[in-house]
Amino acid sequence: MADVFAKCRLPATYQFVKDLGVYPYYQAIEERSAGAEVMIDGRVLVQAGSNDYLGLSGDERVKEAAVAATRRLGTGGGGSRLSNGSLALHEELEARLAVFLGRAAVMVTSAGYLANLALGALVGPADTVIGDRLIHACLIDAVRLGGARLRRYRHNDMGHLERLLDAGDPGAGRLIVTEGMFSTSGSVCDLPGIARLARVHGARVVMDSAHDVGLLGPSGRGAAEQHGLEDAVDVQTMTFSKALGTLGGAVAGPEEIITYLRHYARSMVFTAALSPGCAAAALAALGIVAAEPERRRRLRASAERLSGELAALGYAVAPSDRPVMAVPVGDDLLCFRLWRELFDEGVFTTAMVAPGVPPGQALIRVSVTAAHTEAQLDRIASAFAAAGRRLRLAPVT
Amino acid sequence: MADVFAKCRLPATYQFVKDLGVYPYYQAIEERSAGAEVMIDGRVLVQAGSNDYLGLSGDERVKEAAVAATRRLGTGGGGSRLSNGSLALHEELEARLAVFLGRAAVMVTSAGYLANLALGALVGPADTVIGDRLIHACLIDAVRLGGARLRRYRHNDMGHLERLLDAGDPGAGRLIVTEGMFSTSGSVCDLPGIARLARVHGARVVMDSAHDVGLLGPSGRGAAEQHGLEDAVDVQTMTFSKALGTLGGAVAGPEEIITYLRHYARSMVFTAALSPGCAAAALAALGIVAAEPERRRRLRASAERLSGELAALGYAVAPSDRPVMAVPVGDDLLCFRLWRELFDEGVFTTAMVAPGVPPGQALIRVSVTAAHTEAQLDRIASAFAAAGRRLRLAPVT
Repeated sequence: MADVFAKCRLPATYQFVKDLGVYPYYQAIEERSAGAEVMIDGRVLVQAGSNDYLGLSGDERVKEAAVAATRRLGTGGGGSRLSNGSLALHEELEARLAVFLGRAAVMVTSAGYLANLALGALVGPADTVIGDRLIHACLIDAVRLGGARLRRYRHNDMGHLERLLDAGDPGAGRLIVTEGMFSTSGSVCDLPGIARLARVHGARVVMDSAHDVGLLGPSGRGAAEQHGLEDAVDVQTMTFSKALGTLGGAVAGPEEIITYLRHYARSMVFTAALSPGCAAAALAALGIVAAEPERRRRLRASAERLSGELAALGYAVAPSDRPVMAVPVGDDLLCFRLWRELFDEGVFTTAMVAPGVPPGQALIRVSVTAAHTEAQLDRIASAFAAAGRRLRLAPVT
Repeated sequence: MADVFAKCRLPATYQFVKDLGVYPYYQAIEERSAGAEVMIDGRVLVQAGSNDYLGLSGDERVKEAAVAATRRLGTGGGGSRLSNGSLALHEELEARLAVFLGRAAVMVTSAGYLANLALGALVGPADTVIGDRLIHACLIDAVRLGGARLRRYRHNDMGHLERLLDAGDPGAGRLIVTEGMFSTSGSVCDLPGIARLARVHGARVVMDSAHDVGLLGPSGRGAAEQHGLEDAVDVQTMTFSKALGTLGGAVAGPEEIITYLRHYARSMVFTAALSPGCAAAALAALGIVAAEPERRRRLRASAERLSGELAALGYAVAPSDRPVMAVPVGDDLLCFRLWRELFDEGVFTTAMVAPGVPPGQALIRVSVTAAHTEAQLDRIASAFAAAGRRLRLAPVT
C-alpha cells in the first residue's frame, strides 16, 4: 500500500541548503521600525524585500484606523461575507475602491490570493485562458479550478500571444491574463499590444494589479492608467498586502461580473470575511495613496537611484524607476550564497528560485519602498558591492 | 466569437430572490455589541448565524492584543512568510498551537481556506482522496489543485467509505478527508469508524477542525480529542475565524509534513503573511480557550436549550449540545422566506441553499455562541415560533 505522505520524506533541497548555512526563508522578524528596518536574531537589517512599497503598514494613520475598527467591530467577521460576516465597513471600502479604480463595482476578499482565485468562477472547460509566462501562481490555480484550458505566452511576447490566439478554437471563450507590473521582474505588461490583440480576437482581458496599484499611473490606479488604456482591461484584481500595507484583496469590474462572483466564486462565498482591522487599514491607506502622490514620486526616484547603482556595480540590472529589481544569478546555490552575503552585510533581500521563477533563472529580488532613507539605499548598494566582490559576481568591481 | 463572460449575464436566481424581497445575503452589519447583537439598517438583531462560537472576536483581551501588535508591528506583513513577511509573532503562535493541539508542528496561513488549500501539495495524480460528502468547498478545491482523484462517501456512512476503499487501486496512496464537526449540520464525524478503516486499508486521515477546535474535547482540541483518537488523525487543519474570533488558519501534523508544506504549498508560499493584529488576536484567544473551559460548557448548555426548544416547536432538529443547528426546509424559496420572517422578527440566521448544501436540501443554519444571553436564546426560539406559524412550517404550533 502506497503512503500518500511518502513524497514529504524525499530528500529536499531546503535541507541541503540549510546544512550549508545559506537557507534564506522564514526568517523571523522580531521588531520593525516605522521605516525600513527590521530586527532578526537581535540584529538590525535594512528590509530590501518588502512589498510594502509605500511604507504604509507602519504609518500611524493606517495603524490607528485599524486600532479603532478593531475596538469598535472586533477582531474578526464571524462568518463569510455572503452569510453573516459582511460589514458596512466592507461596503464602504468597496465603494471607495470602485471610485479610486474607476470601475463600476468591486468585491473585497480576505486575501489577494483569494481575489485571483475567484476568477476561476469566470472560466470553464469551454474557455481558453492565455496567460503571460510570468503570471502569479494564484492566477494559474484559478484557471485550474475553473477547469479551463491554459496556454502560456513568453513574457510580454506579443507575437507569441498572437500565435496562441490564432491557434485556439475560434468558438471558445478567450481570456488573456497578465499582471500590470510583474512581481519578480518589475517589468510592466505590454498593454497596448494586449489590447490590440484582444480586440481583434474578441478576447477578454484580466489584469492583476497586485504590484502596480498605488504605484503606477498619475493617480496610482496602476499599469492600465499609466498606459492610458483602462478600458482595455475588463477585470482588474489587486491585493491590499503591497502598496496598501495590510492584508486582503479585491476584484474590480463591470457590475454584472462582480455580482456573479459574489455568488459563485468559491474563494469568496466559502471564506471568512476580512477582519475589521485590515479593512479599515486598507481604507485609510487608500486615502493616503490618493492624497500623497509624493510617495510614488519619492519611490520612483529611490528606485532609479538604486537600480542605477546596481547597474554601475556590474549587475545585469536595467536602470528603471520601478521598485522591483531582479538581480539575475542563474544558479540556485549561488543565489542562496549571494542572499547570505547580503544578509551578513545587513541587508534582507529575497532569494527566488524555481518554482517562483523558471528553473535555472534564480535571482535576488530587491524592492525599494518609500520608507527607505538615502542612507539605507546606500547600504543596500554597498552590500551588493561587497557581496559581489566576494563571490566574483559583479564584473565592474 | 464566444464571450468568456457570457455566463455572468444569465438570468440568476439571486436576482429573482431579490425581486421577491427575501434575499438573505451580504447584509451589511453597521455595528456590533460585545455580545451577540448586530445593527443592520439601523435595527438591532440577535446574531444567530455567527461562527464566533466563543464570542471572542469582541473580547476586550483579544481586541487589545490585536491593538498592541498592530501598533508595534504594523498593519501587514509586507510579503509572504517564506520570503520576507515572517514574524517572531507567527512563530510564537505556531509553537503555542502545536502545544495546544498536541501536534509536532504547525504552519499558520493567512486564512482557513488557504490552510486547507495547502493540502493540495500533499496529493498528486497517483493518489485517491476519499472524502465525506459534506466536506468544505476548500478541501475539494485542494484535491482538484493537487490533481488527485476524488471519491465521496455519503455523510458519515462507514459502509460506503469501506466500499470506496475496497474499490480503489490498492497501489494508490489513499487519503481520507473529513471534518471534525460539520459546518452545516453540526454532526460530528465517525472517527472510530474512519480510524479503523484507515488502519485496515493503509490510508492517511486529514481532519478539518474548523468548527470543533475550541469547542469539542476536554481541552478544546476538537473532535479527535473528544473521541480519544487524536493519533488516528495524521494532519489536522483549523481556522482562526470560528472559535478564535479572528482571521487566519493553520495546518498541524508531523514535522516532515509541515516542513514540506512550508516549501511546496502554493497557498502558503505565494500568499502575504497573516497580519500582526490577527496573529496576536489568535494567540490571545488561544490562551482564553485553554484557560476558560466554562465558555465551552456554557455554549453546550445554551445549544442544548435552544435545540430542545426548536424541536419542541415541531422543527426537525435533533436536540443536542452542539452549537450548529440545521433547520431543514427543503425548498430554496421557502428557505429564503423563512430567513426573511426570522429577520423581520429580529433574528439574523443563515439561509443555506445549493451549492452550500445538496440541491433540494435547503436549510436555515442557526449557531449558538457563548455570547448569547438567555433572553437572546428566547428571542431566537420565539422568532422561529412566529415565523413557523406564519409559514405553516412547524407542525406543533
